Amino acid sequence: MRSGDTAPDIEVIANGILNGDRALLARAITLVESTRRDHQESARALLQRLMPHTGKAHRIGVTGVPGVGKSTTIDQFGRNLISDGHRIAVLAVDPTSKRTGGSILGDKTRMTHLASDPNGFVRPSPTSGTLGGVTRKTRETLLLVEAAGYDIIIVETVGVGQSEVAVADMVDFFLVLLLPGGGDELQGIKKGIVEIADMIAINKADGDKVRLAERSAADYRNALALLTPTSPNWQPPVVTISGRDNVGLDVLWSKIDAHNQRLTATGELQQRRSLQSVRWMKDMLTERLMERITGDGAVADVMADAEQRVQCGELAPSVAVDAILAAVDGTSV
Amino acid sequence: MRSGDTAPDIEVIANGILNGDRALLARAITLVESTRRDHQESARALLQRLMPHTGKAHRIGVTGVPGVGKSTTIDQFGRNLISDGHRIAVLAVDPTSKRTGGSILGDKTRMTHLASDPNGFVRPSPTSGTLGGVTRKTRETLLLVEAAGYDIIIVETVGVGQSEVAVADMVDFFLVLLLPGGGDELQGIKKGIVEIADMIAINKADGDKVRLAERSAADYRNALALLTPTSPNWQPPVVTISGRDNVGLDVLWSKIDAHNQRLTATGELQQRRSLQSVRWMKDMLTERLMERITGDGAVADVMADAEQRVQCGELAPSVAVDAILAAVDGTSV
Repeated sequence: MRSGDTAPDIEVIANGILNGDRALLARAITLVESTRRDHQESARALLQRLMPHTGKAHRIGVTGVPGVGKSTTIDQFGRNLISDGHRIAVLAVDPTSKRTGGSILGDKTRMTHLASDPNGFVRPSPTSGTLGGVTRKTRETLLLVEAAGYDIIIVETVGVGQSEVAVADMVDFFLVLLLPGGGDELQGIKKGIVEIADMIAINKADGDKVRLAERSAADYRNALALLTPTSPNWQPPVVTISGRDNVGLDVLWSKIDAHNQRLTATGELQQRRSLQSVRWMKDMLTERLMERITGDGAVADVMADAEQRVQCGELAPSVAVDAILAAVDGTSV
Repeated sequence: MRSGDTAPDIEVIANGILNGDRALLARAITLVESTRRDHQESARALLQRLMPHTGKAHRIGVTGVPGVGKSTTIDQFGRNLISDGHRIAVLAVDPTSKRTGGSILGDKTRMTHLASDPNGFVRPSPTSGTLGGVTRKTRETLLLVEAAGYDIIIVETVGVGQSEVAVADMVDFFLVLLLPGGGDELQGIKKGIVEIADMIAINKADGDKVRLAERSAADYRNALALLTPTSPNWQPPVVTISGRDNVGLDVLWSKIDAHNQRLTATGELQQRRSLQSVRWMKDMLTERLMERITGDGAVADVMADAEQRVQCGELAPSVAVDAILAAVDGTSV
């Protein structure tokens, strides 16, 4: 492996990843996360090289507001799966995270068992960029850890922003963790998240909160029965768990596994993944096209002006678009 | 007014619309719906001319599966509002509609009272094009009928596709009509719709279905209490109505009115509209940019090939995007 400033040897890194070399996997993720153009090119070459080795893991998304116990639960859940012979990777998506901040999603210190286990791999959220940027990096990292042979990948995100939908759109199964209690704790969770859940788990069903958790679960069961399920082949279950006390995590896994088997059998899983990939491609294409446009100073000025006038109802949006496209045509974009 | 093939006199049409001339309003909408380039240019000039006269109506979206009684309810609801001194316009969004088909949304024959009332205006869904196209036409028509002095505009859509989100994103208030009964009838309604509702009305609460409707309403009230409300200032109510028997439509209106007053007072309504307009502008810009790209045969070929290879997991989406952009750069797009 060469030093950081020469072109990385794609073949060496690829083979290292396929052989489970964690240092080379980490180096590959760093390439994916880099904004340097040459790093980006290397990252894409590497991804393309590894594509035939991706797609074999079970991809699980987990969300919940801060304090719901995501880290404790994932740490314990991952340990259980490792003792069953699995290899677990945990990735985080949090566009608001800062390395200097207090609560870093996926921070290794939060999942001490998983992070120190040879069959566990924990990667914090990429810290730079927009939601789109963070999402791209996480998706590509997911492909890398799949190629590295992790057979269960957990993508976690905090349930207060727009990242949940992005995460739900890169996984096979989307789990929402909630706290025992009325609906109040949900005030913090983004709209629409409960409706895209493949399962709800009421966490912290321990100590004196067991009965409250059971009541909450019953309430959510009734509510979900009134909503359209995520799939014609799946009615999202509601379970109670205690990540801290390792209670109910076996049931949690058996449901996730049942979902996977059912959707694999119906062909729906493959279809879901195809749709996700194509949507990702199209979103990325749109984003790159917009970046090109706004990268031109003159066009960016026209656009900012148009946006401001549309905002105050002075300019019809369709007229604004005409003006922006005219500006684009006046440049070499 | 000149004949169809010469350029329409924008000033004449604009003044006609401002003076409540229905024939000129209809002609303007035809311009908006036309795909002819010169018509499109006239439509935009007209829109821009009328912009200062838009934004004054109360915009209400209504959705529900076929058979829920949308037409009967809207017809009766509109009549009530007209007798209170309002002027009502009803627009429809249905990308699947065909003029030759059986159930045409907004078809005048479905809302006989409103369509024949001098203070009512009913416009069927534009029949051509994609959801994006139909949405654009409906949004622009909405601006035209606002300029024509209709103070309440109802945009209806059938709750089985993707058009509900588009409609919710062009109105101030989004109403979901449901049938009395368990959750079964919801199987037909699109995911996420209940969560974006500003109110749910259980329709057909008449005859022997009154008690069942009340029970359904209670169920939905419990369910909605567990979901995040659409606004911090608004908890979506659940009411029972009978459009056929004109029962509960007064309560329906009083809730919609209360929502409007509350959100106007907090400034949230203005903010919602600004966000909608800017989002509309950006979506339209993206759409037009993509049209330009796929309008080039060579790029379209590269894109179709890339999409197919991404779909089967052979090509990484980010690599596909690079290939498409390289093709774009090789053309004059």
